[in-house]
Amino acid sequence: MSKVIFGVDLGGTTVKLGLFDAEGNMLDKWEIVTRKEDSGSHILPDIADSIKAKIEEKNLNAEDIVGVGMGVPGPVKEDGTVIKCANLGWGVFNVQDELAKLVNLPVRVGNDANVAALGEFWQGGGKGYRNMVMVTLGTGVGGGIIVDGHLIYGTNGSAGEIGHMKVEENETRVCGCGKKGCLEQYSSATGVVYMAHQILDNTDEPSTIRDIPNYEAKDIFECAKHDDPVALRCLNSLGKHLGIALANVACVVDPEIIVIGGGVSKSGQIIADAVHKYYTPNAFHACRDCVFTLAKLANDAGIYGGAKLVLGD
Amino acid sequence: MSKVIFGVDLGGTTVKLGLFDAEGNMLDKWEIVTRKEDSGSHILPDIADSIKAKIEEKNLNAEDIVGVGMGVPGPVKEDGTVIKCANLGWGVFNVQDELAKLVNLPVRVGNDANVAALGEFWQGGGKGYRNMVMVTLGTGVGGGIIVDGHLIYGTNGSAGEIGHMKVEENETRVCGCGKKGCLEQYSSATGVVYMAHQILDNTDEPSTIRDIPNYEAKDIFECAKHDDPVALRCLNSLGKHLGIALANVACVVDPEIIVIGGGVSKSGQIIADAVHKYYTPNAFHACRDCVFTLAKLANDAGIYGGAKLVLGD
Repeated sequence: MSKVIFGVDLGGTTVKLGLFDAEGNMLDKWEIVTRKEDSGSHILPDIADSIKAKIEEKNLNAEDIVGVGMGVPGPVKEDGTVIKCANLGWGVFNVQDELAKLVNLPVRVGNDANVAALGEFWQGGGKGYRNMVMVTLGTGVGGGIIVDGHLIYGTNGSAGEIGHMKVEENETRVCGCGKKGCLEQYSSATGVVYMAHQILDNTDEPSTIRDIPNYEAKDIFECAKHDDPVALRCLNSLGKHLGIALANVACVVDPEIIVIGGGVSKSGQIIADAVHKYYTPNAFHACRDCVFTLAKLANDAGIYGGAKLVLGD
Repeated sequence: MSKVIFGVDLGGTTVKLGLFDAEGNMLDKWEIVTRKEDSGSHILPDIADSIKAKIEEKNLNAEDIVGVGMGVPGPVKEDGTVIKCANLGWGVFNVQDELAKLVNLPVRVGNDANVAALGEFWQGGGKGYRNMVMVTLGTGVGGGIIVDGHLIYGTNGSAGEIGHMKVEENETRVCGCGKKGCLEQYSSATGVVYMAHQILDNTDEPSTIRDIPNYEAKDIFECAKHDDPVALRCLNSLGKHLGIALANVACVVDPEIIVIGGGVSKSGQIIADAVHKYYTPNAFHACRDCVFTLAKLANDAGIYGGAKLVLGD
């Protein structure tokens, strides 16, 4: 049989796992719960057990398996050292070596946003390109950078942390990272909902958003599709901050394609259009024709990327 | 004898040439005039003639020569195609192939700021590192990005064009690139002199700069060293714009070291200090300890980088 690869996307609530062939076809996928108790010490053994069970179920031989690639929610150095995964309870240690011992297979580990970018590059929105920037819009804003077909890790595992570019000088709110005025404060789902609250709670401006109890970002974008003026302002703010930030990213790495993913991107083309509108006039002239597209793999980008990580180039 | 390499730095006024051994020792350097007439059609033949004359002078055999590497003042794709070198009168063509035919040696070509970055990476301020960002402060602001030991070209030869990151939203002046609010408008020699003029021509603020006829950026920095308040404001503006921009660059590629070069950097440590002061609080926490240093090769960075370009990794 042809070789297979395990891709793992370790999140704060669930661990997604996938089995792939070397051509990038998904053969199976499943999930387990992320047990964060006891400083996250059960997480890697649980993942290893789940992989071993799948190996037995599928009657796989060790020589058929290329290895296990995994994205984790925190900065990861190229050697597999996790710097800090606060929401898993982990300190600094080499996840790659640890998991490799447990599964007795080659393991590669990367930051989750970076690994999702690699997945989109391999089998999603960036397929067929060599230089890609991916931005992931969810609770926060993450990113991943592919240069000449390779995922960039950076010195401290923080390449692609474009959510923490400073985009507003006079912000008084503090970002989760401790700085003020980070892109994530404006272009994440959280940032968009915050802006809607700012407008709706402090003015009498009419808006259909008011009719939605506990509205979320996706509700705001739905209202924007129906030309609600407050929703359009929120969408415009997301697009302006992200469009200019991506124009600045393009001055650094000059990508062929920019892929927009994460939960926010599920609201569709209006998101890409809102960003592109501000990217074009603010980009360096040579970079202006960069392709903009939405991510294609949705929640599976991380497991695809994990598989690609261990498969190599 | 050991192999030798030619490094060429093609500028708008002069062409600098150097002869290097494979260990990065400069064996010789010289200059010729850049003849821009006739749409720049004499430039490559002049360079080829100068190289051939040196080969004869030094009694070099073809098999002793690795090749010729050259930086040119404009965007260059990885295949050696020059997109536009307005100040040389050149259109779009493959400089690499053209020069290779003339000298009958392997040739590699890159953007001048990128190639200078490679020179500093090989034998200058970035020696011994793997991930470097260089920013060149002169008439404009250029840059170069080294990731995992490799120079990044980008899709359109525009990687490292950090002088054209948008850093001010409400600028009315137009940058040379056609946009408004580019880093280059504030952190170049030109930008600093412009700011001094703005203050001195429109106010009565006392300043020792007023005593210097036709003052240049280096005069302003000299006054800053003696605590002239207007000069200090100009220096602070350079540092603030560049420090924040570099913090944003670090979110993209997470370098180990940032090297500050170009004519402005000759004013010394006060430049690096002014930039570093704004870098640290604005950088993502994982990237905060990035090393800051001044370039070491001065005007020779380009010929060193040219040699390294053709030598490879």
